[in-house]
Amino acid sequence: MRPSGRQPDQLREIRFTRRFTKHAEGSVLVEFGDTRVLCTASVDDRTPPWLRNKGSGWVTAEYGMLPRSTHERMAREAARGKQGGRTQEIQRLIGRSLRAAVDLEGLGERQITVDCDVLQADGGTRTASISGGYVALHDAITHLMKQGKLKRNPLFGAVASVSVGIYQGVPVLDLDYAEDSNAETDMNVVMNDANAFIEVQGTAEGHAFRMDELNSMLALAQSGIQDIIAAQRAALEQG
Amino acid sequence: MRPSGRQPDQLREIRFTRRFTKHAEGSVLVEFGDTRVLCTASVDDRTPPWLRNKGSGWVTAEYGMLPRSTHERMAREAARGKQGGRTQEIQRLIGRSLRAAVDLEGLGERQITVDCDVLQADGGTRTASISGGYVALHDAITHLMKQGKLKRNPLFGAVASVSVGIYQGVPVLDLDYAEDSNAETDMNVVMNDANAFIEVQGTAEGHAFRMDELNSMLALAQSGIQDIIAAQRAALEQG
Amino acid sequence: MRPSGRQPDQLREIRFTRRFTKHAEGSVLVEFGDTRVLCTASVDDRTPPWLRNKGSGWVTAEYGMLPRSTHERMAREAARGKQGGRTQEIQRLIGRSLRAAVDLEGLGERQITVDCDVLQADGGTRTASISGGYVALHDAITHLMKQGKLKRNPLFGAVASVSVGIYQGVPVLDLDYAEDSNAETDMNVVMNDANAFIEVQGTAEGHAFRMDELNSMLALAQSGIQDIIAAQRAALEQG
Amino acid sequence: MRPSGRQPDQLREIRFTRRFTKHAEGSVLVEFGDTRVLCTASVDDRTPPWLRNKGSGWVTAEYGMLPRSTHERMAREAARGKQGGRTQEIQRLIGRSLRAAVDLEGLGERQITVDCDVLQADGGTRTASISGGYVALHDAITHLMKQGKLKRNPLFGAVASVSVGIYQGVPVLDLDYAEDSNAETDMNVVMNDANAFIEVQGTAEGHAFRMDELNSMLALAQSGIQDIIAAQRAALEQG
Amino acid sequence: MRPSGRQPDQLREIRFTRRFTKHAEGSVLVEFGDTRVLCTASVDDRTPPWLRNKGSGWVTAEYGMLPRSTHERMAREAARGKQGGRTQEIQRLIGRSLRAAVDLEGLGERQITVDCDVLQADGGTRTASISGGYVALHDAITHLMKQGKLKRNPLFGAVASVSVGIYQGVPVLDLDYAEDSNAETDMNVVMNDANAFIEVQGTAEGHAFRMDELNSMLALAQSGIQDIIAAQRAALEQG
Amino acid sequence: MRPSGRQPDQLREIRFTRRFTKHAEGSVLVEFGDTRVLCTASVDDRTPPWLRNKGSGWVTAEYGMLPRSTHERMAREAARGKQGGRTQEIQRLIGRSLRAAVDLEGLGERQITVDCDVLQADGGTRTASISGGYVALHDAITHLMKQGKLKRNPLFGAVASVSVGIYQGVPVLDLDYAEDSNAETDMNVVMNDANAFIEVQGTAEGHAFRMDELNSMLALAQSGIQDIIAAQRAALEQG
Repeated sequence: MRPSGRQPDQLREIRFTRRFTKHAEGSVLVEFGDTRVLCTASVDDRTPPWLRNKGSGWVTAEYGMLPRSTHERMAREAARGKQGGRTQEIQRLIGRSLRAAVDLEGLGERQITVDCDVLQADGGTRTASISGGYVALHDAITHLMKQGKLKRNPLFGAVASVSVGIYQGVPVLDLDYAEDSNAETDMNVVMNDANAFIEVQGTAEGHAFRMDELNSMLALAQSGIQDIIAAQRAALEQG
Repeated sequence: MRPSGRQPDQLREIRFTRRFTKHAEGSVLVEFGDTRVLCTASVDDRTPPWLRNKGSGWVTAEYGMLPRSTHERMAREAARGKQGGRTQEIQRLIGRSLRAAVDLEGLGERQITVDCDVLQADGGTRTASISGGYVALHDAITHLMKQGKLKRNPLFGAVASVSVGIYQGVPVLDLDYAEDSNAETDMNVVMNDANAFIEVQGTAEGHAFRMDELNSMLALAQSGIQDIIAAQRAALEQG
Repeated sequence: MRPSGRQPDQLREIRFTRRFTKHAEGSVLVEFGDTRVLCTASVDDRTPPWLRNKGSGWVTAEYGMLPRSTHERMAREAARGKQGGRTQEIQRLIGRSLRAAVDLEGLGERQITVDCDVLQADGGTRTASISGGYVALHDAITHLMKQGKLKRNPLFGAVASVSVGIYQGVPVLDLDYAEDSNAETDMNVVMNDANAFIEVQGTAEGHAFRMDELNSMLALAQSGIQDIIAAQRAALEQG
Repeated sequence: MRPSGRQPDQLREIRFTRRFTKHAEGSVLVEFGDTRVLCTASVDDRTPPWLRNKGSGWVTAEYGMLPRSTHERMAREAARGKQGGRTQEIQRLIGRSLRAAVDLEGLGERQITVDCDVLQADGGTRTASISGGYVALHDAITHLMKQGKLKRNPLFGAVASVSVGIYQGVPVLDLDYAEDSNAETDMNVVMNDANAFIEVQGTAEGHAFRMDELNSMLALAQSGIQDIIAAQRAALEQG
Repeated sequence: MRPSGRQPDQLREIRFTRRFTKHAEGSVLVEFGDTRVLCTASVDDRTPPWLRNKGSGWVTAEYGMLPRSTHERMAREAARGKQGGRTQEIQRLIGRSLRAAVDLEGLGERQITVDCDVLQADGGTRTASISGGYVALHDAITHLMKQGKLKRNPLFGAVASVSVGIYQGVPVLDLDYAEDSNAETDMNVVMNDANAFIEVQGTAEGHAFRMDELNSMLALAQSGIQDIIAAQRAALEQG
Repeated sequence: MRPSGRQPDQLREIRFTRRFTKHAEGSVLVEFGDTRVLCTASVDDRTPPWLRNKGSGWVTAEYGMLPRSTHERMAREAARGKQGGRTQEIQRLIGRSLRAAVDLEGLGERQITVDCDVLQADGGTRTASISGGYVALHDAITHLMKQGKLKRNPLFGAVASVSVGIYQGVPVLDLDYAEDSNAETDMNVVMNDANAFIEVQGTAEGHAFRMDELNSMLALAQSGIQDIIAAQRAALEQG
């Protein structure tokens, strides 16, 4: 029995609120249940130095948690003077995942930065960030197309992500904090709308997992991600 | 004529949304028009090292802007590896202002940290932070009293803040970004509910200001702050 | 009764020693009683990157305290690896104050950096820094004019600063350390030689201050600053 | 055809040289072909602060590359003043993987730090580090047992790791640099000697991968890891 | 012919001004010609963590240059966020040199920090710092003895330092900046009042130096240092 | 009697293993007994910014110790976020010493970086680094000549280094850790193959040293360095 009463294959309520703030070219509040992340996509006409004059654009991501987005207050990374290893790992994952959906040459010599800032954490902040970041990225690219700066859409697919794990011996979908902190295995999966894998990251927390457990988790992820992609599409169709 | 069409002595719409997030002892979204700041107050049972075993508590503040809370994306301070001078100046101001309303010995040996994170900036983020931070602090102290950890309320007054300035030769109240970036003089005023000054910070941007201009600005601030204190009180009475 | 035996409206002895060191274009030891600050003004032919090719110059300031300028030795900021919030706040204040006296376009595409290093602290180091920094800046600009690099003097007024406060219930001028550490209210005022305000920064330390107290302090500051400006002028006339 | 001429399921030559340096409790030079990593295990009688007096030990890892271990010289992280995101990601992975083989309570209140320093890089430095780090950890624990500091061996299994990927459409085992830099998919797998998974990290570089490709890669990894575990065992038996 | 017109074996004018500032237990302005360094010695009742409860005291030094102590303004190390290699090298040298004159156990469990801040640089700042730092240290120890905190004087000798070098083929004593920046060889020598060496640091700038050149330089240094020690003694006798 | 049983004027076994790693233009494992340092020389076609377009090249060095190269594990400098003072001092010394053998204009507008990473420490790591660094530098320059990028060899001499000291009253050559940690005086000497001095750094650890002791140490160093230069030459002749 899951703490939330959900079925093993049941997602939390997923919501995408577009135009949550007014300055960014894309601004989306994504909610996976009580996990809430503000994803903004910002267009910059310069690419990073190592890409200059190479005919290609770039998509990158940054991630942060507000100090009291969590049960206990965490030290502010800006005050500590550096981003922790977990933060860097997550923002590298978000960036790689989103780039997997973009034709970087088609984007032209510009950079889009997707900032994912966690307002409230309840498990799954990285999977929510990827899923919401995609919607923000989509809006920023639509903005560039409306301005006439892009002739063809460089997005060639949708990207979404969900966590799966083994909780009390049972494979479950979309772990919340109560499950996440007690799971035996935790896996984050990123897929596209062609049902193919972009990233698979599984970690044994309690005991090492067998191949059959891995396969059950992957099946749950596949199903959940297609539902999230449907929710992204519905949000984007609202104009 | 102000860009927003407001009267010189007219505040923007002021809103305090309590319990905006679920983990913090106090969590308030404060809005001064389009300026939106999330203020959380977190209770910690330890005081900073220099205060240990001295029979006194502490109230401190931290401030940050989300990278795309502004017109142009700003570099993330955590990624740059330090908080800028402006950030430090503002968080020191918020902390001093809130401490002016608290009997620190009455608070006991604990610390309350008020985090003010700007979700959307449109001028006046520091005055909104102080005004919203007070409401979050109030909620955190009420929480301590309900838990029986405090017998007497250590808050001995309300604190609020507003900006005033001289825009196109006219003293105006509560500047938004369009005014702030063109004001000749900019002043931030912090007061309590006894109509007395906690902090006055005025800066000539264009030309030095005369005593009569200073007096006009202080009168506007006094009036505006009493309205903000009334709005704080209304929000806190909603239980 | 003030610890120093001074009258409430009496300045400490103010001295400006020009050419205190030999390399800088302007080098002034300023003394406000036992507070001694070495102010040097250095001319650089390059402006900061964000100002390049915009037809304008820049004046900026840096501030530091020698580790044992104070009663207790303070940690050296270079060894700690960062400048503290107080240091940044003060150097931003000095820079803004001095820029208020300079026509930056008239200065041409160059930067003048005013370094204020406290050799001995006894209260009022920031007001001494502004007052002495102005004299050093004046000498550096005179140097540029003598070299023929400037045709017209870009300085359009004098700038000086003093602190005022409420000590044992009485408004007093130019607080020394004994007063400063016990004052109920502390205010730093920067003015020009046209008797107008450049910066007003008042902070309630003990209790919030009323409008009449604010007005008494401002009157003391006005009078004290005109005396300091007279002392600056006398020092500069010595050629 | 692989650049090295190897079969798709063929490992590079794997070598473990124990006692490579003399000070560490465990010191192993691990070679996966031309990839050479020095792994040392150091015992410290203190655990990290957050574990003190909790009856448990800790195993952690640090990772670094010598500046010219690579084709082009990389900047030294100590000189740049911070460890990059990739470094942190890898050392977190090594630490998690090794802890999966240790009963931390059985280790007692001490910490073992496994340093993995890459002398020469040719692809697969993280999988070599995990595989060699396990041998160094084993030696350090044997050392503690010989000293009588541990009664029972807290290691409850062996750990090894290998990379797999899809190179020119074919799933291959243990990628070297020539393959790694051109692979369409890259996956690092960590397993124990019970044929179960400790960590699975797969990333699509070129195109997203299908479930059948994932399964082929996992099968290659399982087979390769059992060979590496056999090589570890052979090295450890040499006494 | 030396730029200053001095003889090869002639020191610049050496001056020690004690009690230059009022807070430090020892405060000395040392001048070697136009080189001026403020040396303060500060007593702290705590020793560094690694010395606690070992029955021994410590003497350490820190060194800094005011940004415009030099011909061209140098970046402030506190603003750059770290002390450069040259600074660290010099402060380590000063600390070692002064400790060579102190019985650290006789000092008791306290630390004396000697801060050497260069107000004006004209060559030889490190040798002036050591020579002046000794006088400041002496005053701080006398202060401790007067307070009754030390029964026996832990100083067992005087320490002074001078530079020597080969300028235009001729060995010369106490190089000023004009010589230093053109010397073929530069050597800093630290000695005690028993005519023995504490530190010898010689560097070939232009061409490698022969043994006979080394011996000439050492002879010059010996003679110069005895004169500096005499000047220290004279200053200390003034009470 | 020396702990190792060596004669006072006896070097440890000195070995230079060229091509120890495969990527660097020069890669040498140098061994002074149990002290082992990996020296790589890397060619970069760009010079540092302050040398650009001045017709000159540059040779620089970096130094590091693997965390467990020492008896006790040392904190990793990359993790601590800065290089310590000792590290900076040593790498500055190595760089200066190697530049003393190179005609920088003859090198052309390129930089050679010599990285010295200590795999195992047993005293004398800096002298081994200089001696091994020279061989690596030689190989890198030979590489440039073979590529036709240099017409004439810019090396105009060999450089080597050794430590000398006074151990139990006796001057000894090439101290190992057991001696180094108990020596009364420690001196590092760098010389060229013309028997002239490039650098002399002597420090009194226990008591100040007399001129005759200094001379005995220098004589030992001269003799030892000529043997090391012979060993360098033998290694380089092996082609």
